[in-house]
Amino acid sequence: MNLKDLRDEVFEANLRLVDEHLVILAWGNASGIDRDQGVFLIKPSGVSYAELEPGRLVAVDLDGKVAEGTLNPSSDTATHLELYKAWPEIGGIVHTHSTYAASFAQACRPIPCYGTTHCDFCPGDIPCVRALTKEEVEEAYEKNTGTAIIEDYKNNNRSPVEYPGVILSRHGPFTWGKNAHKAVENAVILERLAQMALLTRRINPEIGPIPEHILNKHHMRKHGPNAYYGQKCANSI
Amino acid sequence: MNLKDLRDEVFEANLRLVDEHLVILAWGNASGIDRDQGVFLIKPSGVSYAELEPGRLVAVDLDGKVAEGTLNPSSDTATHLELYKAWPEIGGIVHTHSTYAASFAQACRPIPCYGTTHCDFCPGDIPCVRALTKEEVEEAYEKNTGTAIIEDYKNNNRSPVEYPGVILSRHGPFTWGKNAHKAVENAVILERLAQMALLTRRINPEIGPIPEHILNKHHMRKHGPNAYYGQKCANSI
Amino acid sequence: MNLKDLRDEVFEANLRLVDEHLVILAWGNASGIDRDQGVFLIKPSGVSYAELEPGRLVAVDLDGKVAEGTLNPSSDTATHLELYKAWPEIGGIVHTHSTYAASFAQACRPIPCYGTTHCDFCPGDIPCVRALTKEEVEEAYEKNTGTAIIEDYKNNNRSPVEYPGVILSRHGPFTWGKNAHKAVENAVILERLAQMALLTRRINPEIGPIPEHILNKHHMRKHGPNAYYGQKCANSI
Amino acid sequence: MNLKDLRDEVFEANLRLVDEHLVILAWGNASGIDRDQGVFLIKPSGVSYAELEPGRLVAVDLDGKVAEGTLNPSSDTATHLELYKAWPEIGGIVHTHSTYAASFAQACRPIPCYGTTHCDFCPGDIPCVRALTKEEVEEAYEKNTGTAIIEDYKNNNRSPVEYPGVILSRHGPFTWGKNAHKAVENAVILERLAQMALLTRRINPEIGPIPEHILNKHHMRKHGPNAYYGQKCANSI
Repeated sequence: MNLKDLRDEVFEANLRLVDEHLVILAWGNASGIDRDQGVFLIKPSGVSYAELEPGRLVAVDLDGKVAEGTLNPSSDTATHLELYKAWPEIGGIVHTHSTYAASFAQACRPIPCYGTTHCDFCPGDIPCVRALTKEEVEEAYEKNTGTAIIEDYKNNNRSPVEYPGVILSRHGPFTWGKNAHKAVENAVILERLAQMALLTRRINPEIGPIPEHILNKHHMRKHGPNAYYGQKCANSI
Repeated sequence: MNLKDLRDEVFEANLRLVDEHLVILAWGNASGIDRDQGVFLIKPSGVSYAELEPGRLVAVDLDGKVAEGTLNPSSDTATHLELYKAWPEIGGIVHTHSTYAASFAQACRPIPCYGTTHCDFCPGDIPCVRALTKEEVEEAYEKNTGTAIIEDYKNNNRSPVEYPGVILSRHGPFTWGKNAHKAVENAVILERLAQMALLTRRINPEIGPIPEHILNKHHMRKHGPNAYYGQKCANSI
Repeated sequence: MNLKDLRDEVFEANLRLVDEHLVILAWGNASGIDRDQGVFLIKPSGVSYAELEPGRLVAVDLDGKVAEGTLNPSSDTATHLELYKAWPEIGGIVHTHSTYAASFAQACRPIPCYGTTHCDFCPGDIPCVRALTKEEVEEAYEKNTGTAIIEDYKNNNRSPVEYPGVILSRHGPFTWGKNAHKAVENAVILERLAQMALLTRRINPEIGPIPEHILNKHHMRKHGPNAYYGQKCANSI
Repeated sequence: MNLKDLRDEVFEANLRLVDEHLVILAWGNASGIDRDQGVFLIKPSGVSYAELEPGRLVAVDLDGKVAEGTLNPSSDTATHLELYKAWPEIGGIVHTHSTYAASFAQACRPIPCYGTTHCDFCPGDIPCVRALTKEEVEEAYEKNTGTAIIEDYKNNNRSPVEYPGVILSRHGPFTWGKNAHKAVENAVILERLAQMALLTRRINPEIGPIPEHILNKHHMRKHGPNAYYGQKCANSI
């Protein structure tokens, strides 16, 4: 298997989680997929970022089997797997316990859309996916976590491209993108939006969501068919 | 067109936004104007600060046409343009989504004047400019954003020199100054004042504005005709 | 006495307290024990981290006597001593005044278990040990601080391995682990959990503790007999 | 006048204000006095820390006249002067607008003594000195600021050694110590205590002051006649 370039990219994406202050110690993980070969590379479990090397990333195939590597893959691997299988549009996934996003998750609350910074990311509240039942946890905790995210998107007619991240009740954020780096970037943004949402409500507890006409304008000028933000190339995801 | 010095200055001002933790990724923008040649230089749209180079800044004339450069100028260019046209006193403009200032903006609240740090910046609350109507957004969002700022200053008899920055409802701060560096400095101060105002009200929810006689003293010792703060040279703006 | 390796380790653990932003100036202290020789090394009292050297650490035996070193050991030495004597499982201890943990301590409140990040650390609230009485303070403040921690664990059937840290009413956190580095790591985690608990309750003041079935799953996948987190080696403590 | 050593010390103390994140831009100032020669060195007014050099510090005598230097001394010089004249015990003074301390100041509230970290600094609330009247402001704002601090200490039988810092209503903190470096250290501590007090009350709005027997123990083990904290040498101030 030739995974050299992906290996470098996923390695760098993992290290960037530390630089962006999204993870400490061995918390969190980033992965990236090679759709042609049908494998994704993911951080090994419980290995601190200081000890990480490109060669230590674990290659996992779409049956969830280790295809290359001697270490155990992240304990959250089954969640990544479900998302990659359900959503062919995505090429990278990131999971962190970043402080503000994880606090919204612990509080079991979506991140409300109060301003244009948020609209640039997604056109509405960042979803807070329900906690798993006792049965789901016991049967297959990590796999069912992925299933719950996908189910939430189906039920609410949300596209993973429009909403490039969620928070999981009591747990923390998952974000994704067209590759591992975009997934990291979305994790950075989601964390900042969480912090700003908290501050916003503290400044004005009565504030409601951003008016629809501003939401649409900001989201469409960046992501719509006539988007004029940026240089006519890559967009988020 | 000879814009070499301005190019270096505006480039450095943009990078300083990152160093001062006012922007992340490709958010925000700084510009500076050459009044003689009638053009201003501004950050290209959607380009991350890591990829920015002096030569990538876009020169825009006072009709809003690109005068030099191959990239698209910032999507907020029309807002900068309106301000430069309305206010000949200013030479640089900065827009960020800095955390505390943007949170006041999202909360649709001015930043109250609680202490002497604030008086050194401006003699009263930092204005929160109204959100645009649906019609204004659809007609010309960025241009009308500039118009709304200017209208707010006219209606309230505020001078852009006395009040070197605002926050825009649901959006974030704009600051300005005699050049791009002063505009950055004012963005730094505005962000800090927002944080301190939030903390102040949390410590004492009943606190009112600073008494007028202290406000005037502090503002005048720095900005008045008999100012004795500093070295008898440059003042803010 | 040959304490070379332990000396290096405890020295590095002390410096890491600064790097992890858990201490400033001369606040806090880390120690590590050599169970075979029956001595532990601890930071000297009131010495700033900038002035610390491996040779300045003080060796203290299990009778509380200085066994090696010319400086006074930390004023909290008697607390470390009590814990080492009561709990043979632990090899390192850390005390800090880290901001969020010390604020919970000052507020005389345990750190509630709201999410999976917390479950990975310990299976329930992080205990807030009672303040000492006037008599206990006057008799032997630091020794009785240790006694109070141990008493709290006995009364509540808590194991120091399962709960690798506490906060002391009105004071700050103590953490421990199989060695000084693990104790530092636990101090890092405890501080982050305190911050996240505070934010969580601010986002949702009605939030209750994490449901038991998620708590157990997360704690057991990392610490249980069939733990599958990590690489089948070191676990916390 | 030979002020070489003092010049280096005061210069370094000023720069440390930046490193400790207590000041930004040109805010704040540190000074140190040579009691034998009867002059103190202070930061020049409105000069940013990046442009500061030892030779740019201004020497001021105890009549408030510039004794050496070509720049204007800090606009707060008259406050420093009053404190040096009233309190021969002190050798250095620092003024900042550090975020949390200045927020307590803006809120016109003392910093309550909730824990042992605070007791190590001073034996009770950190005083919030009253705002000046219109007459006092107009007559001699900076001088009368010093007078108000001194008056507050006299009225409350507080010693500047026991209470090495205050906050000024609507303004910010002043701290002092036996030299400029100790004054900086006290500014660092005061800022941290302000942050922790705010957090403490947010965690437990009902919390009262620390019980007297713990306050006394902690203050006396560090500052009392039988202090056993540290290495039998320098104490705070």
